[in-house]
Amino acid sequence: MKASVFVGTSVDGYLARPDGALDFLPPNGGEPHGYDEFMASVDALIIGRNTYEVVRAFEEWPYGEKPVFVLSRKALSPAPARAVVERMSGTPAQIVAALTRRGLRHAYVDGGLTIQSFLQAGLIQRLTITRVPVIIGAGVPLFGPTTRDLMLKHIETRQYPSGLVKSEYEVLA
Amino acid sequence: MKASVFVGTSVDGYLARPDGALDFLPPNGGEPHGYDEFMASVDALIIGRNTYEVVRAFEEWPYGEKPVFVLSRKALSPAPARAVVERMSGTPAQIVAALTRRGLRHAYVDGGLTIQSFLQAGLIQRLTITRVPVIIGAGVPLFGPTTRDLMLKHIETRQYPSGLVKSEYEVLA
Repeated sequence: MKASVFVGTSVDGYLARPDGALDFLPPNGGEPHGYDEFMASVDALIIGRNTYEVVRAFEEWPYGEKPVFVLSRKALSPAPARAVVERMSGTPAQIVAALTRRGLRHAYVDGGLTIQSFLQAGLIQRLTITRVPVIIGAGVPLFGPTTRDLMLKHIETRQYPSGLVKSEYEVLA
Repeated sequence: MKASVFVGTSVDGYLARPDGALDFLPPNGGEPHGYDEFMASVDALIIGRNTYEVVRAFEEWPYGEKPVFVLSRKALSPAPARAVVERMSGTPAQIVAALTRRGLRHAYVDGGLTIQSFLQAGLIQRLTITRVPVIIGAGVPLFGPTTRDLMLKHIETRQYPSGLVKSEYEVLA
């Protein structure tokens, strides 16, 4: 199973403010920058508990009817109507193995700590970062410590009239 | 006096490794990406003491005969031959005022803490970040805490065959 990251960050690399707020991101993604096409290409999501609590509170559940695997060792708050949510726990390698056995082919990995642990484990193949033109100074970082350099191959960068810059990388190792 | 930043970072936003090493940056800048043109447009540099100690140890002093103002409250180690180095101390506003009085028109501000303090003070007008396709996990960060959002205007992003992605921003406030 392939796993990809598709995130928006501030220019200083934050996914969210310290309290989880996303108000610095443009409403509705700002302008079409490939999110819908990316979502159409995945058949499952893997998110952390913190991300789950944030998106659970959205007016609209953002993942439609795709299966969403929430990494947590504790029971989860009830899922919104329509949402397909399942709790899992384990190492990134165990999660990928479990979803592969279920026949899933492309997972969207989201949330700071979850992304970091999958990157560190070498289990992310594609990394797409859309940078919003603002520096917020603090928050939930996209990246964290690693035990080694992670080499990337730049695939393509696109810029959008509103100032979004989307860079897509293949993770080499 | 206008002040600009022109830096290379890892994709996770580091200017250097924790010990100051720059080995993750491609040798000689990788491929031409506008550094020479940028250097030709500045008439002075403002760097911090840490950056000074790192570049002092380079085989070749990277700033030619341009005046380099090193922010430090203590006396500096001797400058290399040919280098034009002067110690200064003060707030970013005081430094900019002093250099403006000397008739300088465009300063290149470099080094993590120095960049952060000038950005925070609203004294950087142009921010050019060239991202090298690697995640290093730790080091000297380009950005630090801010007391407010710093709004940017995206000017242009260019991508290079080696994988460098250079984004240029105007700092709005």
